[in-house]
Amino acid sequence: MSSPRIALLQSSGRPGSVADNLTALDDAAARAAALGAELLVTPEMFLTGYAIGDRVPELAEPADGPGPAAVAAIAARHGIAICFGYPERSAPDGPIHNSAQLVGADGTRLADYRKTHLFGCFEQRWFTPGTEQVVRAELNGLSVGMLICYDVEFPENVRAHALAGTDLLLVPTAQMHPFQFVAESLIPVRAFESQLYIAYVNRTGAEGEFEFVGLSTLAGPDGVSRVRAGRGEELVTAEVDPAFLAASREANPYLRDRRPELYGTRS
Amino acid sequence: MSSPRIALLQSSGRPGSVADNLTALDDAAARAAALGAELLVTPEMFLTGYAIGDRVPELAEPADGPGPAAVAAIAARHGIAICFGYPERSAPDGPIHNSAQLVGADGTRLADYRKTHLFGCFEQRWFTPGTEQVVRAELNGLSVGMLICYDVEFPENVRAHALAGTDLLLVPTAQMHPFQFVAESLIPVRAFESQLYIAYVNRTGAEGEFEFVGLSTLAGPDGVSRVRAGRGEELVTAEVDPAFLAASREANPYLRDRRPELYGTRS
Repeated sequence: MSSPRIALLQSSGRPGSVADNLTALDDAAARAAALGAELLVTPEMFLTGYAIGDRVPELAEPADGPGPAAVAAIAARHGIAICFGYPERSAPDGPIHNSAQLVGADGTRLADYRKTHLFGCFEQRWFTPGTEQVVRAELNGLSVGMLICYDVEFPENVRAHALAGTDLLLVPTAQMHPFQFVAESLIPVRAFESQLYIAYVNRTGAEGEFEFVGLSTLAGPDGVSRVRAGRGEELVTAEVDPAFLAASREANPYLRDRRPELYGTRS
Repeated sequence: MSSPRIALLQSSGRPGSVADNLTALDDAAARAAALGAELLVTPEMFLTGYAIGDRVPELAEPADGPGPAAVAAIAARHGIAICFGYPERSAPDGPIHNSAQLVGADGTRLADYRKTHLFGCFEQRWFTPGTEQVVRAELNGLSVGMLICYDVEFPENVRAHALAGTDLLLVPTAQMHPFQFVAESLIPVRAFESQLYIAYVNRTGAEGEFEFVGLSTLAGPDGVSRVRAGRGEELVTAEVDPAFLAASREANPYLRDRRPELYGTRS
């Protein structure tokens, strides 16, 4: 089985300008494909920017709206799958979700995930939390799942993916100062304790009141980062190795050694 | 509210010799009390040693056996609470558990916890897993819980303590090479994600086939180690600050922001 190469686009694009962000994505997709990557992952709310304040309703789009359609065209043009974050309008005048969408290398929409754990006042004001914890798709022989930012800080969410069979968890994020501990320590621990790969892809720079910390990483099931970005704009790549993942799961039998009969009720 | 000082005894004592280990404990309790500690925590299976092989049945004792009684006398003599690991015989010819016991500063037995998640061939051969996930006692104004080694690597167990209100989790351990990632990274993340203090107290040196890695720590709810031992024998202390814990829980509302209605069935 081959080892798919994953590209992480650490960037803020230009908040508020979908057109500029699509241009940046087109450029990144070309570079990622040239580096041999089969999948490009972008940060939370990449399509519009994160700190868009009261423009959320105006910029939100349906999952098949013009912005997502333009991303699909970029994916197909460069022959690379893309995971991107965006504000999703679920129906005309319906609730808005903080979503991530996975598009295949042929431009097909494979999965759409709505953030279930909203962080802080800005998100809780504008977004409705999703109701589906585990959203996945098959991609190049891997079971690929999605979470968004704060979601991954809850071990319950990553565990649910692991138990469902997720091999690679894509986590677009907007991780801000002073929480770099999450990028540096929590993500590798999540990957280790639940025995999967995690691609954690952050924004960078300042937007409004937020200062994003970068430090995007692909963490392996051994708790070791395969690649680690710095604080600025960066496109980095690393491989997901299915054979290593299988061997790691055999050597670290956390999922087999769980004792769910002790873990109480639904909470 | 005061900030109790906790002492961590990183040691192997002398495997197989309860008398020698009681002597070492008496010495450590005197030093810990002199340093102002109100609680002394020792490693997994401290009373007997860990790598005692087929001597487990011979060395196992009931919770009120002569070994635990001697520990209680040491606690009372120095006026310091003690948490210690030992092989517990549940009934004459009954199952043996890998246990940790908490004794108050007056020598009263406060709680006895039986390891629920057994690690590897040695433990699975000799011990019967416990059936109670959350075991706690009140101590000096804190809700104090116990887990043992491998237990803490499962986020479910720490989360259950946090939801039950545990402030300080005592984790006697026998953490071996090459798993120092657990001591260095996983423990601070556990403390952060579930917003409590964790005292992780390891053995050190070689015993039989095992090489223990030390690195004992008291980790705070901010994911920062208050103290970190090296690789050798060491007695270290640090404070648990209830006011800091309360403020940290307010600033990091993981327990409030959980969405148990999404977390599925009892597993």
